[in-house]
Amino acid sequence: MSISNNKDYKAIQAILEDAKKRYEMFKSQNLNLDMSRGKPCKEQLSLSDELLSCLESYKTKDGTDCRNYGGVDGIPEAKELFSQMLGVSKNEIIIGGNSSLNMMYDAIARAMSFGVYGGKKPWSKHEKVKFLCPSPGYDRHFAICELFGIEMITIEMKKDGPDIEAIEKLVAEDENIKGIWCVPMYSNPDGITYSDEIVVRLASMKTKAEDFRIFWDNAYCVHHLSDDHDNLKNILEACKASGNPDRVYIFSSTSKITFPGAGVAMMAASENNINLAKKHLSIQTIGPDKLNQLRHVVFLKNMAGIESHMKKHAEILKPKFDAVTDILEKELSGLDIAYWNKPKGGYFISLYTLPGCAREVGEMAFQAGVTLTKVGATYPYGVDPDDRNIRIAPTFPPVDELKKAIEIVAICIKIVSLNRIISQNP
Amino acid sequence: MSISNNKDYKAIQAILEDAKKRYEMFKSQNLNLDMSRGKPCKEQLSLSDELLSCLESYKTKDGTDCRNYGGVDGIPEAKELFSQMLGVSKNEIIIGGNSSLNMMYDAIARAMSFGVYGGKKPWSKHEKVKFLCPSPGYDRHFAICELFGIEMITIEMKKDGPDIEAIEKLVAEDENIKGIWCVPMYSNPDGITYSDEIVVRLASMKTKAEDFRIFWDNAYCVHHLSDDHDNLKNILEACKASGNPDRVYIFSSTSKITFPGAGVAMMAASENNINLAKKHLSIQTIGPDKLNQLRHVVFLKNMAGIESHMKKHAEILKPKFDAVTDILEKELSGLDIAYWNKPKGGYFISLYTLPGCAREVGEMAFQAGVTLTKVGATYPYGVDPDDRNIRIAPTFPPVDELKKAIEIVAICIKIVSLNRIISQNP
Repeated sequence: MSISNNKDYKAIQAILEDAKKRYEMFKSQNLNLDMSRGKPCKEQLSLSDELLSCLESYKTKDGTDCRNYGGVDGIPEAKELFSQMLGVSKNEIIIGGNSSLNMMYDAIARAMSFGVYGGKKPWSKHEKVKFLCPSPGYDRHFAICELFGIEMITIEMKKDGPDIEAIEKLVAEDENIKGIWCVPMYSNPDGITYSDEIVVRLASMKTKAEDFRIFWDNAYCVHHLSDDHDNLKNILEACKASGNPDRVYIFSSTSKITFPGAGVAMMAASENNINLAKKHLSIQTIGPDKLNQLRHVVFLKNMAGIESHMKKHAEILKPKFDAVTDILEKELSGLDIAYWNKPKGGYFISLYTLPGCAREVGEMAFQAGVTLTKVGATYPYGVDPDDRNIRIAPTFPPVDELKKAIEIVAICIKIVSLNRIISQNP
Repeated sequence: MSISNNKDYKAIQAILEDAKKRYEMFKSQNLNLDMSRGKPCKEQLSLSDELLSCLESYKTKDGTDCRNYGGVDGIPEAKELFSQMLGVSKNEIIIGGNSSLNMMYDAIARAMSFGVYGGKKPWSKHEKVKFLCPSPGYDRHFAICELFGIEMITIEMKKDGPDIEAIEKLVAEDENIKGIWCVPMYSNPDGITYSDEIVVRLASMKTKAEDFRIFWDNAYCVHHLSDDHDNLKNILEACKASGNPDRVYIFSSTSKITFPGAGVAMMAASENNINLAKKHLSIQTIGPDKLNQLRHVVFLKNMAGIESHMKKHAEILKPKFDAVTDILEKELSGLDIAYWNKPKGGYFISLYTLPGCAREVGEMAFQAGVTLTKVGATYPYGVDPDDRNIRIAPTFPPVDELKKAIEIVAICIKIVSLNRIISQNP
C-alpha cells in the first residue's frame, strides 16, 4: 500500500483507526490463545486412542518377545510398514523410540564424535563445521547446530524449495560444510514441497566435503490436507541414481500420525549408513521400546491404514487451515502489507509482513493474549534478517479460538504496517 | 588340589576320567543352552502383563495429556515413585525412555562434547580421558568407554566393593581420570554390595580432576532374592555430606522390574547436574514416552507395590540361584579348583576357575552346547588378566536346562583344571 494522494491517506487512516479500536476491544477481553507450537489437538489425539489397548500379543511375527531384551533396530513388522511409508527397503531403515528429533540429534552427535560412513575423521576434528539452513525452517534443527557449535548458513527458501544455486555454489567450494537441514515436504513453516528438480540437484551436486550429509526431516510425508496433495520425489533413489547413495539421512515419525508423546520414530538411509548406525546403537542402547512399535503396527496395519487414518486428521485440520487463510484474505487482501502461503499439508502457515514489522506484530499480539512462535525462531540464531516471518500453527486451538487469534494477528499487522507507511510518508 | 603322592594322582585320574565320560555323554545330546545374558525369563515377564492394558486414562494428576508433546524430564508421578526408589528428591531425578544404558551413554557423550557441571571444558578437549573400571564388571559400560576412546584402568573387586585404596591413590594423582563405573548393589557379575565405608570413601576422596564423576549404575536396587538382603548406603547423601554434591550420577530402570524391552529408565543426581542435563535434553529430544511412564505408575503404584512385585520375581529366581550353587557345591567342593559367590540378589553368579583356565572352560562348554557370557567380557577390552572369571546368568533358562548347563560347566572346569594339574606334576 502506498500513499499517492490525499484520498489514499484518508483511506489508510480509516483502516488504521478501525484496527486500533478492534485491538483495544480484544485486549480488554484478557484472552489467552496459544498458537506457538505445531501440536495436534485433542480431537486428533483421540483418533489413535485404540493404541492404548490394542495389544493382544507381545510377540512379533518372527516370534520375538517384545517384552524382553533384544534388537537395536526395530521389529520386522515395523520396518516393513515404515519402509513403505518412506519408500526405502527393509534393510535401509532403523525404527527407534518416540522422538525423531532424538534420532537426528544422535546422528549429528555420532558424526561429530566418530565421523560418518566413508568420512576420514570425526566432524569435530575439523577446525570448523558448517551447516546450510534453508530458512525459515525448524527452530529445533537450528538449536542442535548451536549446541554443537556448528556454524549455520542461512539459505533462502523459494517457491519450489531452497535456493539451489546458492547451495551448489557453497558446497562446491567449502569443505567445512558438512550438511544441510531439509523439511522437504510441507516444509516447516512455509508448507512448501521441494520440486523434483531440487531433489535431484541436492542428490547430485558436487560437494567439496566427501562426508557431506543431507538431513531430510520428512516429518509430514503423509500429512495431506486433502486429496489434492503434493508429491515428493524419493531422495534416496535420487542419491543412488547420481552415485551418492550415502549422502542422505531420512527421518520421520508417527508423532503427528498417532501420539506426539508416545509415537515411533525412524531413520532411513543407505545400508552403509544404517549398518554403521546400528553398530553404534548396539553400544548406545539396549534397544527401542518394541512393544510400542508392535502397538503401532497392530493399530495402523498397513499403508492403506495410515492413509485412511491421515484422512481423519485432514478432516479436523482442513477447516482450521481454511479459517486462517480466509481471515487473512478478508482482513489483509489488497493492502499490500502481507502475504501468506496456502499449503496442501503439514502443520504451519507462513505469514510474511513488510520487512521490519514481524517482531513488533508478535509483541502486539502477545499484549492482546495471543502467543505465536517466537518471531525470529524460524531462522538460525533466532534472527530473521528481514524481520518479516510469522509462523502460524493452527492445529492445536479450537476453531473459534483460532479465528479470534488470527483476527488479532491481522489487526496487529495493519496497525504496525500502516503506522509505518504513514510515518514514512510525512 | 595338589598331587603329593600316588594315591592323590589316582584320585585325580579317576575324577578326570569320570568327567570326560560325562562330557562326551552331554556332547552327544546336541544341547543348546544359553546362559549368556542377564535376561528375565518368561515367567518373570508375565508378572507384568497387566502393563499391556492397565491404562485407563492418559492424563497425569496435574492434567498433562501424556499423548501430546511436552516435558523432557518425566511426569510428576513417575518422578515421585522412582525418586523414592533411589532415595533422592523429586528435583534430583529425570525419568527417561526405556534404556538406562542409553542414559549412561548420553551422560558420557554430553560430558565428552560439552563437559559436566562445574567442569572447565569438555572432557574430549583433554589430551586423554581415563575411567576406573572395577572388574569383573558390566561389559556394556566398558564398550561405551572403548567407543569414545576413554582409557580404562582395571580396579580389583574385593569382598566389600572395589579396591578403594588403589582408587584413592589413582584419582588423587591423575587429572585425566574423569570417572568410575560402579554397579554398587549386587554387582554385575560378582553380586557384591559396596560396604558403607566404600560408599563414603568414594564420595569423599580427593580427586585431582574437579570434574570427576561416579557413574552409579544401581540396576539391582530392589532386586533381592529373599528377605535376608543387602543394604546400600545412599551415595548422593554421602556426596553431599562430604562437600561433593555433584560427584555422582545415579542410574536405574525398571528393565528387570517390569519389561526389559519396554520399561522406564531414570537418572538421579544433584540439582545442578539435573538442571544441566535437562537443558541439553530440551535440545536433544521432544521428551520421553510419557504414556509408558504413566502405565508404570498405574501398575506399580508405590514403593510397597514395587517391593511386593519384586518378591514375586524372587520366588522365581531364588530356586535358580540355589540350583546353580548347589550343583557347583556338589561337583566342585573340596577340589580347590574353583570358587564362586552366593549373592543375595541381582542377576549373576561369578565363578572363578584356576588362573588361566576360564577361556578354555568356556570353549569346552560351548562345544557341548552351553553358551556362556564371552569369557573375558567382564573385563576392560575383553581381557581377563588372570583368565579365571566366568559370569553365570541363571535367570533366563528353565530350571532343568539351567541345571544341565551348570553341570556341564562344572565338568568342563574339572577336565581343564585337572588336566592342568597333572601336566604340571609329571
